[in-house]
Amino acid sequence: MANNLTTIITSATKTVEINRANPTVIIGERINPTGRKAVLAALKEGNFEQVRQDALDQVAAGAPMLDVNAGVPGADEPALLQEVLRNVMAVTDVPLSIDTANPKALEAALQLYQGKPLVNSTNGEEKSLQAVLPLVKEYGAAVIGLCMDDNGIPPTPEARLAVAAKIIERAAKLGIPAEDVVIDPLVLTLGADSQAGLITLKTAELVVKEFGVNITMGASNVSFGLPDRRALNATFIAMAIHAGLTCPITNPLVEAVKTAVLAADLAMGRDDYGMRWIQDFRQRQKKVNAE
Amino acid sequence: MANNLTTIITSATKTVEINRANPTVIIGERINPTGRKAVLAALKEGNFEQVRQDALDQVAAGAPMLDVNAGVPGADEPALLQEVLRNVMAVTDVPLSIDTANPKALEAALQLYQGKPLVNSTNGEEKSLQAVLPLVKEYGAAVIGLCMDDNGIPPTPEARLAVAAKIIERAAKLGIPAEDVVIDPLVLTLGADSQAGLITLKTAELVVKEFGVNITMGASNVSFGLPDRRALNATFIAMAIHAGLTCPITNPLVEAVKTAVLAADLAMGRDDYGMRWIQDFRQRQKKVNAE
Repeated sequence: MANNLTTIITSATKTVEINRANPTVIIGERINPTGRKAVLAALKEGNFEQVRQDALDQVAAGAPMLDVNAGVPGADEPALLQEVLRNVMAVTDVPLSIDTANPKALEAALQLYQGKPLVNSTNGEEKSLQAVLPLVKEYGAAVIGLCMDDNGIPPTPEARLAVAAKIIERAAKLGIPAEDVVIDPLVLTLGADSQAGLITLKTAELVVKEFGVNITMGASNVSFGLPDRRALNATFIAMAIHAGLTCPITNPLVEAVKTAVLAADLAMGRDDYGMRWIQDFRQRQKKVNAE
Repeated sequence: MANNLTTIITSATKTVEINRANPTVIIGERINPTGRKAVLAALKEGNFEQVRQDALDQVAAGAPMLDVNAGVPGADEPALLQEVLRNVMAVTDVPLSIDTANPKALEAALQLYQGKPLVNSTNGEEKSLQAVLPLVKEYGAAVIGLCMDDNGIPPTPEARLAVAAKIIERAAKLGIPAEDVVIDPLVLTLGADSQAGLITLKTAELVVKEFGVNITMGASNVSFGLPDRRALNATFIAMAIHAGLTCPITNPLVEAVKTAVLAADLAMGRDDYGMRWIQDFRQRQKKVNAE
């Protein structure tokens, strides 16, 4: 199908195929010190136990990919990101998303990584495109493109589509094919703007219709400042899957979100005979019975 | 907007406006003896206590409309449906959906009803169109059109769209405007066919794009025979709202479903400042605290 490109991400031993015919690929978001004081403190001390545990827990919860971020203020990010990656790769062999805004850290990570990673991220800013895309090409990676540019985050789906188009075109000029560009339409909080969710969903639909690329999102932003965030995130992620989302960056340990993703896959015809749904239900039952 | 017609349903004192700019209208499904042995037995005995309680409970849970069905095998349905309606109207003044496959019962109900009801339902079968549409016109009602005809339920979205088109055209010939036809794309269970959900969602999208009419569904069919039906129903209903569903016939007493509908409304930009979401959260908290 023209509107269903496949992004292939690999580790040394595993391959993940992201597209709209396969089940949704949850990219585990937990290996990230932002907003996690204990993790931040541990990383500053060179303690990687929590990172390893986060990797194991998320893979056990069913995440076929993990996002890895080592953004510790004041740290030597290239060295720290390499060390975090080494620790993650020591305990799991799932393919990774390398999450950094620092081009030097990105290059250090790409030098170390075995396989074809997902680079998180570039965007429509000139500076970002010029720093990130050549590295993505050189190391044969795939890349997330955020729908924002030098003017910030555009307020309309059409303007965000234009940023996505710019990123995809610039990538193509360097020889990076569209299937290796994953677009993030960006989600702002509904607490500040009640149209924020709709703008994101419409952007995803427009980008899929125009380019057929895969779509990612850090979907939990949508509920910032509102109560019962888990229920809202779970519902929004299911609606976003209907709008074209294929690889959300989220927390697979949150049962409501994971259940909604499985239910959405079943509803979208991506779970033959409901086998994944039934299997997950049995595992949840076992967990309840064991408690 | 061309793809956003408004269906107005009224009681003697209340008006409900169904469209894609307003919050989703849950039509409470509980006043229905099908599959409810105790209700069936009570109705046979002329006992309407449970009917009254179901009406009160569903309105208290936030349903702005109620579906009323008196399908008791062997009963005098015209008389029984009138009696059930009288009991419902005695305890609540929300607008009603009159749910019967019996044209005589439908006419008896229409004679009694005060206001503009929703007739549930007609479909693409000649016999149904000829029996139901003239009554809908005569009494100035709105009507649900099911996407099935003399050949059964079509297997493809395009063929279901064609049935919807036929119903809308036949209604128009009698002077019933498109805004008074609410289409049900029909939901089969995912347990039997993993494409069933997608076919329903695509049908809804096609019907909305082509005619702009409102969409209803008995969404709980989707999970028949599968585990954790409530979670699956909740996710599916949210995705269906994104696909165009505006007035599901469902059980507002199931918290997972009601929460998903509120979250979907918020995500679709139909809940300014998240006020309904926040209010519902507070009510749920009070309930938890009271338990």
